[in-house]
Amino acid sequence: MAVCTAYNVKSLNSSYSVSTPAKSHLGFHQNQVFFYSSGSKKTNYRRSGSSVITCADSGTIVIGLAADSGCGKSTFMRRLTSVFGGAAEPPRGGNPDSNTLISDTTTVICLDDYHSLDRTGRKEKGVTALDPKANDFDLMYEQVKAIKEGIAVQKPIYNHVSGLLDPPELIKPPKILVIEGLHPMYDERVRDLLDFSIYLDISNEVKFAWKIQRDMAERGHSLESIKASIEARKPDFDAYIDPQKQYADAVIEVLPTQLIPDDNEGKVLRVKLIMKEGVEFFSPVYLFDEGSTISWIPCGRKLTCSYPGIKFAYGPDSYFGNEVSVLEMDGQFDRLDELIYVESHLSNISTKFYGEVTQQMLKHSDFPGSNNGTGLFQTIVGLKIRDLYEQLTATKAGAPLQATKA
Amino acid sequence: MAVCTAYNVKSLNSSYSVSTPAKSHLGFHQNQVFFYSSGSKKTNYRRSGSSVITCADSGTIVIGLAADSGCGKSTFMRRLTSVFGGAAEPPRGGNPDSNTLISDTTTVICLDDYHSLDRTGRKEKGVTALDPKANDFDLMYEQVKAIKEGIAVQKPIYNHVSGLLDPPELIKPPKILVIEGLHPMYDERVRDLLDFSIYLDISNEVKFAWKIQRDMAERGHSLESIKASIEARKPDFDAYIDPQKQYADAVIEVLPTQLIPDDNEGKVLRVKLIMKEGVEFFSPVYLFDEGSTISWIPCGRKLTCSYPGIKFAYGPDSYFGNEVSVLEMDGQFDRLDELIYVESHLSNISTKFYGEVTQQMLKHSDFPGSNNGTGLFQTIVGLKIRDLYEQLTATKAGAPLQATKA
Repeated sequence: MAVCTAYNVKSLNSSYSVSTPAKSHLGFHQNQVFFYSSGSKKTNYRRSGSSVITCADSGTIVIGLAADSGCGKSTFMRRLTSVFGGAAEPPRGGNPDSNTLISDTTTVICLDDYHSLDRTGRKEKGVTALDPKANDFDLMYEQVKAIKEGIAVQKPIYNHVSGLLDPPELIKPPKILVIEGLHPMYDERVRDLLDFSIYLDISNEVKFAWKIQRDMAERGHSLESIKASIEARKPDFDAYIDPQKQYADAVIEVLPTQLIPDDNEGKVLRVKLIMKEGVEFFSPVYLFDEGSTISWIPCGRKLTCSYPGIKFAYGPDSYFGNEVSVLEMDGQFDRLDELIYVESHLSNISTKFYGEVTQQMLKHSDFPGSNNGTGLFQTIVGLKIRDLYEQLTATKAGAPLQATKA
Repeated sequence: MAVCTAYNVKSLNSSYSVSTPAKSHLGFHQNQVFFYSSGSKKTNYRRSGSSVITCADSGTIVIGLAADSGCGKSTFMRRLTSVFGGAAEPPRGGNPDSNTLISDTTTVICLDDYHSLDRTGRKEKGVTALDPKANDFDLMYEQVKAIKEGIAVQKPIYNHVSGLLDPPELIKPPKILVIEGLHPMYDERVRDLLDFSIYLDISNEVKFAWKIQRDMAERGHSLESIKASIEARKPDFDAYIDPQKQYADAVIEVLPTQLIPDDNEGKVLRVKLIMKEGVEFFSPVYLFDEGSTISWIPCGRKLTCSYPGIKFAYGPDSYFGNEVSVLEMDGQFDRLDELIYVESHLSNISTKFYGEVTQQMLKHSDFPGSNNGTGLFQTIVGLKIRDLYEQLTATKAGAPLQATKA
C-alpha cells in the first residue's frame, strides 16, 4: 500500500541473518524490500542510515490480537474485516496451508508463523508452542516493523497440518495489519509497534465448556483427555500468554453467566469489554452516563426478553493498575428488537449510521457468539478500530511529510 | 376562587345536622355556602336539586397527603406551596391554633380538624386519634366535596394545644386544596374526590430513630417511653393508616441506608418514590431508560462524593397489585454539584427550566431532608402536582362549561 519515493536498503544495517535469493526468502520486487530471518538466533536490529523511507501515504496501522488457540480469534478477524467492508480470504495462488487472511484493507497474519521450532523441534526440546523459546521474536519484530514502514516482507508459514515450517509468503503492507496469535504483546519491541491491542480472555470455566463441546462432542475425545490437555497447557499459558492482558487496550473477558444459578453449560455467557482510558484515538464505549457506575436490565416495559434475560453493567474500574472503563453483558439476544434496543442505548460505539452494530451482527448471524456479548463486543471493537484507523490516517495526512528518522 | 353564577342552597338537601347561625357554624356570606356538621353522627349526604353550581373557572384540585404524625407532612407542604411560588401561612386574623396553611394557590387543611372526639372524648371511649371512630368522615367528605365544587365551608378546628374542638374557620375554595393527615384515603367517598394522593411511608426503623432524636434528645423523654408510645400506636396505625398506601398515586418510602452496613442512626436514608402507572396527568419520573431496570452510582469520574456516596435505582415493579415505577435514592448530597448532576440525569421531572429542582432544594436548604431523597422526592412530587394541576385546568378550560349535575 505504501508508495515510497526513496529508500536505502543498505541503511537497513542489521545483524540478523539475511537469506539469499536462491532460498527465495529475500528478494527485490519493484519498490519493495523483502527480508527474512530463517533462524531463531537472537539478534539486535539497528538502523544506521539517516533517511530511509519517505512514503506518500499514511503507513500501516498495526493491531495486535492475543488469545489462546481455539478462542475465537478467527471469528473476531472476520467481524473486523467485515466492518471495513471486505471479506477476508487466504492469499491467492499461494500455499493452501497459509494462515494469512487478506481483505481490501486488512491483512491478518498468524503469529504461529514465527514459530522457530516446528512440531518435532518442540517435542525434542520439550517446549510447547506457548513457550517464547519456540518463537522468533526478533524476526516478528523486524517484519512487523518493516510492514509498518511500508516495506513488504517474506514471512514464514507454520503449517498447522504438517507441523513444519513451510517456505515463506509475500506480505505487502496493507492499510491495517493485524497480528493475531499467542504472543502479540509478549515482546516489548513488537508491543511498541502496536497502534491498538486486544486480548481475548476466556475464563477457565468457559474454555473447558467449549473444549468439551468441540473436542468431545465433535471430535470424540474423552473428558479425561480434554482435562489433561488443558492442565498440560496451563503452566505455560499462565507464564507467557495470560500476562499480556495487562498491556491490552481492550480486553474481552468471557465468563459464565450469573443469570442462571450454578450454570456450567457455558452456553449463556457474561462478557466484559475492558477498555483502557487515555489511549489516543480510542474513546471507550459507555452506557447512559460516562464515568459513573450503572447496571441496566433492558428487559422491562418496552422490551420483553425470554429467560434468563439480559443484563448490562458499566463503570470505571482499575485493571492491572490502569484506569479502565468496563462494559458488561450477561445473557443473550433472542430477537432482533433486543439487539437494536441495546445498541440504541450505548454511546461512543463509533457507528457511521443508526443500527450499524445490529446490521453487522445480523450479517454474520451464523458466526459463533452472534447472539451474545462476544459477538457484540467484537463488532464494537471492530468499529472502534475503524474509527481509530480513520483518526490516525487523518492525523497523519494532516501532518507534513517527513523523512523517517532512525 | 370559584365564581359561581347560580346555586340553590335548598337543593343541598341532606340529612346531616346543620348548625344554626347562632353556633356560628353555618352562614351565608356573599355568594358562598357554608355548612358544618358538628356531631359525629353518621349521615347520608344526598343532593336532590338538579342544577346547583355553575362555575366560571376550573374548580379546585384536591390532593391527599397521608402520613403518621411527625413524619414530615408540614415540610412536604412547605415544599409543595413553594413550587407554586408562594409562602404558606396560617389564616390571617383567625384562631392562632388553626392548623390551616394558606398560600396564593394552595390551602392545606389538616384532617385532625375532623376529629369527632376531642382528647377527653377519646380517653373516655378508649380510642386513639388513629381510630376512624374518633373522626367524622361524613363531614370530611361533605366539606371536601363542597370545596371541590367551589363552595366555601366552615371547617372545624381541632386545637392540638388544648385537645378541644374550637369554633370553625372559613375555608374558601382555593386552586389547590391539600388535605393532609392520618386518613385522607381511608373513606372511599373522600378518596374518590382526590385528584392525586400521596402517602409518606416511614419505616419503623427510621421512625424510631427520628423519635429518639426528637423526643429523647430534644424533649427529654426516656427510651422506654418512646418505645412504649410507638408500640401503643402500632395496632391502630397498622389497621387504619398503613393500608391507605395501596390507594396512593405516589408513595415516598423512607428506609435505613444500605450504603453503611448495619447503620441504625437513621441519618443517612434510602428513599423510594413509588409512582403508580396509568394515572391521568401524572407521568412517572425515570432514570435513563423508561421502563427498564437501572442502578446508578453517579459518583465516579465526573462527580466525586464523600462516604458513603450516593446510589440510585429505578425500575418497574408491582405495589399492592398495581403497576408502578420506583425511583430510589440512597445516600445524601454533600455539595451543590452532586444535586445538579443528579437532577440533570432524571427525566420527566416536570421542571420549567434546567435546575429547578436544585433551585427549590437550595431555597429550602434549612428544611429537614434537603440533602437526601426525602427532600428531593418531595420537591419532585411538588413539581409533578404543579404539572398535573396545569394539565387538569387546561383540560377543563378547553371543555365547554357545564352545569354540575347531581
